[in-house]
This record gives sequence, C-alpha cells and structure tokens, in this order.
Amino acid sequence: MKAQNFEKKPEGLYEPIDYILHLGGKRLRPVLVLMAAEAFGADVKKALPAAMAIETFHNFSLVHDDIMDDAPLRRGKDTVHEKWDVNTGILSGDAMLIQAYQQFETYDAELFKALMQLFSKTAQEVCEGQQYDVDFEERDDVTIAEYLHMIEYKTAVLVAAAMQMGSMIAGANEANQELIYQFGLQLGIAFQLQDDYLDAFGNPENFGKKVGGDIAENKKTYLYLKALELASKDEAQQLRHLYSLQPEDDSAKIENAKQIFEDSGAAKASLDAIEKYTTSAFENLNKLDIASPYKEAFTDFGNWLMNRKH
Amino acid sequence: MKAQNFEKKPEGLYEPIDYILHLGGKRLRPVLVLMAAEAFGADVKKALPAAMAIETFHNFSLVHDDIMDDAPLRRGKDTVHEKWDVNTGILSGDAMLIQAYQQFETYDAELFKALMQLFSKTAQEVCEGQQYDVDFEERDDVTIAEYLHMIEYKTAVLVAAAMQMGSMIAGANEANQELIYQFGLQLGIAFQLQDDYLDAFGNPENFGKKVGGDIAENKKTYLYLKALELASKDEAQQLRHLYSLQPEDDSAKIENAKQIFEDSGAAKASLDAIEKYTTSAFENLNKLDIASPYKEAFTDFGNWLMNRKH
Repeated sequence: MKAQNFEKKPEGLYEPIDYILHLGGKRLRPVLVLMAAEAFGADVKKALPAAMAIETFHNFSLVHDDIMDDAPLRRGKDTVHEKWDVNTGILSGDAMLIQAYQQFETYDAELFKALMQLFSKTAQEVCEGQQYDVDFEERDDVTIAEYLHMIEYKTAVLVAAAMQMGSMIAGANEANQELIYQFGLQLGIAFQLQDDYLDAFGNPENFGKKVGGDIAENKKTYLYLKALELASKDEAQQLRHLYSLQPEDDSAKIENAKQIFEDSGAAKASLDAIEKYTTSAFENLNKLDIASPYKEAFTDFGNWLMNRKH
Repeated sequence: MKAQNFEKKPEGLYEPIDYILHLGGKRLRPVLVLMAAEAFGADVKKALPAAMAIETFHNFSLVHDDIMDDAPLRRGKDTVHEKWDVNTGILSGDAMLIQAYQQFETYDAELFKALMQLFSKTAQEVCEGQQYDVDFEERDDVTIAEYLHMIEYKTAVLVAAAMQMGSMIAGANEANQELIYQFGLQLGIAFQLQDDYLDAFGNPENFGKKVGGDIAENKKTYLYLKALELASKDEAQQLRHLYSLQPEDDSAKIENAKQIFEDSGAAKASLDAIEKYTTSAFENLNKLDIASPYKEAFTDFGNWLMNRKH
C-alpha cells in the first residue's frame, strides 16, 4: 500500500506518517475490506479508499498505543516516538486519524454516511478497549467477561468493521452485513485468544516473539484469569504470587506459571474457547449469501489465521 | 454546554473528557456556529450538533497541545495530563476527536458529507498549524508569511469553519458560505495578531496573562519577526541576543525587547496588520446576504473581540 503523503508539508508531521505506513505488516485489515467487497460483487477498486482508511486508522492506533506502552520497537524498527519524539507521535497520530476519515470522501453521500457511522463507532470502541487494557494493569479483580469485552473492542471490532465495510460498498443487505461483521468479530476474538495461548505455549521457532513474554510482564490474559478461576486455592495463591514478581531471570517464573495453566485446566479451557469462537465465526461465514469460491477464500483465510490444517 | 458522557464507561476515558468540557472557556466557536445558522434563517437547534462538534474538537486540540507544550494549567485548572497522566491525555483526546465526528451524524447524508469534508480539512489544517508552531521554535529563519500561515491554520481556520458550518446548515449558497468563512478567517488572524500585540503592550490589569510572557519565552511572534525585518543591523542583533537568554529576572529583557519593537516600527506595523485583517473581515461581513440585525450582531461581536470601541 502506497502512502499518499510523500513530500507533503510540514515534513515534521507527514514524514512520520510515511514512515509508519511503510514499515510493512501483514495488511490484513485492508485485504479483508477488498475481499469482502469482491465477494459481494463490487469492483475491488471501489473498496480501495475504505481499505486505505482502515489501514491508516490501524496505524494511528499503533503509533498512539506505542507511546502509551513505551514500546521502543514496532515491526522490528524504531517506533515513531522513539525515532522522533512523543510530541511527534501524538500529532502525527492525530493527523492519521483525520486522514483515515478523509479517505472515505470518495463515496457518495449515502454510502459515505453509513461507512462513517460504522467507522466512528468502531474507532470509539478501539479507544475504549485500549482504556480497559490500561485499567486492567492496575486491577486484580478483572473477570473473564471483562477480558473478552476488552479484546473484542481493542482488536476484533476493527477486523469485523473492515469486512462489513467491504460488504457495504458492494451493496450487501443488512442481514449479510451483520453476518460478515460477526464472522470478523468472532474470528478476531479467536485470533487474540490464540495469540495469548501461543505466547505461553507456542513453538519458540515459529512464534516470533519471546515465549512467556506475557507471563514475564504479568499480563492478565485469558490463561491467567481462567487459571485463577479453575485452580485450587493454593495454586491460585501461588499464581498471584508469581505475578507479583519481576525476577531478572524469569525462566523459572514462566515455567511455574505455565505448569499452573496446564494443571488447573486453563490451557485446555483456552483451547476450547478458541475453538468455540472459531466455530462461531465459520457458522456466520457459512450463512453468507456469497458464491462458493469466495466462501472458500474466507475459509482458507480463517484456517490460515488460526493455523488450522483442515 | 452540557457534556454527554456522564457515567459513560470506561470512566478512565470519559471522566477526563467530562472534566475538560466543564472547565468553562468562552464557548466562542460554538456560539459562532449558532449565530451563523440563525443569520441565514435556520432554527438554532438544528445547528447545535455542529456547535458541539466544534467545541469538542477545540477541546481535543487543547488537551493534546497542552501535553506537547507541557502546560500545567488550562483556564486556571490542572490540565488533563497533569490531573491524570500523559497517556490519559492522549487517549481521551483521541476519543474526543472521534466524538466530534460522531456529533455530525444527526444531519442528513448530503449535509453530513459537506460538513464532514469541511471539518476534516479544517482539522488537518489545525494539526499542520500546530506542527509549524513546534517547528518554528527550532528555526531562526521564519518569515512573516510563514508566521501568518501558521496562525491562520492553528487558530483562524476553526473560527472560519465554525461560521461556514452554521451557514451550511441554514442552506446558504456557496458565495455566502465563502464570505462568512473569510469573515471568520480574517477576524481569527486579526485576533491572534492582537493577542500577540497585547502580550507585549497590553494593560496588565486587563490582559489576564503576564505581560511580556511571549518575550520571556522567546516566542517568535509577528512583533519579533517584523522587528528583525525593520530594525537596524545593530538592533536586530541585540534582539536576537535577547531571545537567546533565559534570565531569572526577565523584566529588563522584556523592557529592552519592547523598546526595539517600538523603535523599529514593528509595534506600529503590528497595529496596522491587525487593522488590515479586521477591515478585511468586516468587508466580507458587509457583503453577506443576511438581514441587518444579524449583520449588526456580527459587527458587535467583531468589535467586542477586537476590543474596539467603535
């Protein structure tokens, strides 16, 4: 995807935007906009501005989240606030959010308004999800339901909105719009739960990140919350204790926590939840009124995303 | 103006929004939306959502600017990042920008799209203006033209857009939309130039801020840039030197700089520029196709804003 701001002034505002948009990444969300539009019979070109908007918004949220998380690296390169400074990250992020809105201006008024309403609602939810994520760090009474709500807002709604937007651009009816939104939403939740699971139990060779990173950082993931729910009193107390530590060498801490995740049944429960959301996603997909090659393409995509062989 | 988010969750996101929207302020921009709508014959109620959007956007920009300027106080109270923290300021600001967009959703699709296009264009310009302001702190070759461009974007375009939006909601034709936009734009520039002038030459009893604050902070205002242009080589060198100092007691620095502003003719040139932009604003106002009571109301507003007795 080509950034549009090359040589736009002031450079201090637009260079960082150009930088983050060229860092790569999988471009999953914009591809889903295009796939959905095509599946419902639209010319892919008509979906490009919405696809750009979704990717621009996603990158806006990365730039601001990286400031909040004090993250030095993004996709293996310096984050914007690290390469420039925090103020640049804030202001360039703001400009990207506005640009995302502007990219919808190519659509006629009725479609424009419908897309904007979904976009704003989604953007608001993403902010709320980020706030819950921040809040949860300070809380020790987070429930599983709250955690699922947080990942739904922080991650899944944008995937869902991307797919619905493609269908809207193609003129899909409301029933189909809702089905494809639910496909994206359930798949997004499944994906995030799997990401949490693989963080602890993934193959270090394939995973890309440090295995056990979430445990090391005391992140209250589904595995942790479920373990507290299922474990014996002693195990639960031990797990809470482990999550109060920040040892220099955290390998023992990680191993002990993983053991409790397994012994308590949390690991199994996590796999069950992933399966449940994935199945629900595919049930919605199967009800979609689209030609079978497109249904197969989405099925392949879902299986690829969920690392499923079947 | 009543904030809408009371008791909305997560509180960590919406309490700061509630806080900043209740800090007061003159509510100039939303009032201008309403005035313009009424002048062109619309029910004021129809303009309320746009007025709310403009005020919400303005407060978004204050919250993010205050982080960038490391400002502890806003309207005599703690800034959001001071009362909470920088991350809260970033995220609540983001949510306010999105809320501003959402407030337009009450308008029908055609009007919605037209308002959104003006809103996004204006928002983008405000970001660019803020970036220029940041850039100018590091540069010593800023031209008067660049400075005027900066204050136009950072301050005046939002006033102009507020007025144009009111006229759009009332169904004003394009010629009138452009005239009222120009009225707001020229008045906004005149106001900012006057703010710069009063910072140095205002009556300490009326001004509210510390007189000479811009000089103390080495801010490159119109007065400073014009003085460098008009002053003798010696005076210019002296002024540059003064602007390299940060003395504990800055009263002598301030007095010396003001003397150069006067001796060089920069103070007079500044008053001339204020007069020029104000006159231009009123010329646009006079061409507006609105009933005379509304024209008088805008004239009174302009004179009040510019502290003019006539």
